[in-house]
Amino acid sequence: MQNFLLTLRFDGSAFCGWQAQPNGPTVQDTLEHAILRVTGEPVRVTGCSRTDAGVHAREYVCNFRSDTKVPAARLPAALNSYLPGQIAVLGCREAAPEFNARFDCKAKTYRYHIHNAPERDPFLLRRALLERHPLDEALLAREAAAFLGTHDFASLRAAGGSAKTSVRTVSRFDVQREGGEVHFYVRADGFLYHMARIMVGTLLEIARGRLPQGSIPEILAARDRSRAGPTAPAEGLMLWEVEY
Amino acid sequence: MQNFLLTLRFDGSAFCGWQAQPNGPTVQDTLEHAILRVTGEPVRVTGCSRTDAGVHAREYVCNFRSDTKVPAARLPAALNSYLPGQIAVLGCREAAPEFNARFDCKAKTYRYHIHNAPERDPFLLRRALLERHPLDEALLAREAAAFLGTHDFASLRAAGGSAKTSVRTVSRFDVQREGGEVHFYVRADGFLYHMARIMVGTLLEIARGRLPQGSIPEILAARDRSRAGPTAPAEGLMLWEVEY
Repeated sequence: MQNFLLTLRFDGSAFCGWQAQPNGPTVQDTLEHAILRVTGEPVRVTGCSRTDAGVHAREYVCNFRSDTKVPAARLPAALNSYLPGQIAVLGCREAAPEFNARFDCKAKTYRYHIHNAPERDPFLLRRALLERHPLDEALLAREAAAFLGTHDFASLRAAGGSAKTSVRTVSRFDVQREGGEVHFYVRADGFLYHMARIMVGTLLEIARGRLPQGSIPEILAARDRSRAGPTAPAEGLMLWEVEY
Repeated sequence: MQNFLLTLRFDGSAFCGWQAQPNGPTVQDTLEHAILRVTGEPVRVTGCSRTDAGVHAREYVCNFRSDTKVPAARLPAALNSYLPGQIAVLGCREAAPEFNARFDCKAKTYRYHIHNAPERDPFLLRRALLERHPLDEALLAREAAAFLGTHDFASLRAAGGSAKTSVRTVSRFDVQREGGEVHFYVRADGFLYHMARIMVGTLLEIARGRLPQGSIPEILAARDRSRAGPTAPAEGLMLWEVEY
């Protein structure tokens, strides 16, 4: 039995998130169905992350164990022929027998995409948050720096997650503007439920003047979800990079 | 009565092209319906171009005459509130009474987008042609140069167009690679029915070795559609810029 590591890319707008569930199609369900078609084996795939409905992935890593004789190098094209266009298998290789895409993940980077313009762009539909208020990216970068380092992120965690501790280490929080588009890049050793989206929602409240500048250290110290901003919409979020 | 010039952007994958027709939703129908909702007037909109089903527009210009009291500066937001997310009105201004978006157009630029990679990209679904054969952009640029200038493009014209003459002047044909994506930019004083897509299809046949290098001058001279390559798929084509 081999342990296959798959690298995926998916447009999350067509799915109810990664994890198999009864309310609609998920990336996991769809992928497992394609693996069954190619290998003849019903398998369970382990994903690097539960992603929310509507969240995208530029790079998503998962693994599954199989006795298939299809070589790893041929699996991407074989699986893609059974997958809808919103999911692509970009690569496949054999991993160590004990490799686990969820537990062995050392760091993840998410990108949050904001379209900062007076009117929407059809090519960013379901891929970016439209924010009409002009954003000051230098201000955002200064405020976001308060998230860097090791903190208890209990204020930036939605109810419903399963993590035992809410302490995480954020090692990157970049704010980049390209014309009318603003991108946040956040890297951490792990993300609590909705943490990336609440960080973005909090920064946007500061940018809009609804939360005071310099308030993130106090929000973190409070360990109280009600102190942070709202959860930014899923559509702007994309899993950007996964490190092992 | 005022003559309003609208600038649009649309994702053509949701529409049966620009022009009103009975087989499904078109951009023109959808826009005229939104104008009716905003102004209370049934209007006919004149577009700069018939675009085929699935063809996109980064910049599309159209005009309509109306007695509305809504100022031009407020029309984009008003219309966008009635339009689906696949269409956006980016701007509106009052034009000269005789302005006609179709007949006054001096030049159009189309972009054709090719994803040149072994596997598809979900974020380019219905927005680019997937071409797995590695393309040599220097070769493509050399071959494409044969289209530049004033020629009879009868060999690159599909049956069904209404143009009286098939002579057109191509003033730009650039080939640009950015990583795994190749873009063609074609500017002309006008395009015959399917002309941009047949130019691309012909270049791809040369790149694939199915038509000989250097054959474009002969294809043009033949004035015979059967000599050129196939019509490249609509999904890769985008109206990029319109000049008046």
